[in-house]
Amino acid sequence: GFALGRHITIEYYDCASDVLLDKDRVESILLKAARESGATIINSSFHQFEPQGVSGVIIIAESHFTVHAWPEHDYAAVDIFTCADNIDLDTAIHSIEAQFSSRRVVISSDQNRGVLPSGVGGCMTNSDEK
Amino acid sequence: GFALGRHITIEYYDCASDVLLDKDRVESILLKAARESGATIINSSFHQFEPQGVSGVIIIAESHFTVHAWPEHDYAAVDIFTCADNIDLDTAIHSIEAQFSSRRVVISSDQNRGVLPSGVGGCMTNSDEK
Repeated sequence: GFALGRHITIEYYDCASDVLLDKDRVESILLKAARESGATIINSSFHQFEPQGVSGVIIIAESHFTVHAWPEHDYAAVDIFTCADNIDLDTAIHSIEAQFSSRRVVISSDQNRGVLPSGVGGCMTNSDEK
Repeated sequence: GFALGRHITIEYYDCASDVLLDKDRVESILLKAARESGATIINSSFHQFEPQGVSGVIIIAESHFTVHAWPEHDYAAVDIFTCADNIDLDTAIHSIEAQFSSRRVVISSDQNRGVLPSGVGGCMTNSDEK
């Protein structure tokens, strides 16, 4: 079959908790990874929780990046959903690994999304680029 | 082991394309589903693509809802990531199914995220609720 998207989920264990405590750092790390992967960033929304924790989402023209960080567990969950072949996932995964100083990275799933019997794919185009 | 979160991915095939074409409808459907599931909505961000397509994210206190809709394929990909036991996932899944008029729903994955050897869990608290 033909798939519209690819979705990978990544577990970052044993991260530097001081990084995960800081919403602005987590946001800039995710934005940097998205940029380095070749994604076209449309917008981002990050939220700081109390007493700690960060959730964030970047909508890209090619779908999304999300992160949920639990500094108290030195852990962050990252998802990357992409509908484009030209996104360099390895670059994004390793960029985040380095910036979070994660000592154990697990790609917990890598799946096709929107599996169609046949068809012609390709990403949606950003209306802002018309 | 102990898991910090639960992440399910849902494929909605054979949807009503007129619904998927409309960003505002897709956003209100996702917000309604999140509310009905018992989630605490923090913010939402939805984007209309041209010539068609919608991407959207809702950050909830308990993690996130995301959607990517391909009206030309009558298909939408939805993810729900939650760190709370009190979120009613079935209610959310069926609410979206009914509103999208999807005739084929596939729960393509249901996984634990952030599996720790032991520990005490619970969600992050929203700083706005302090």
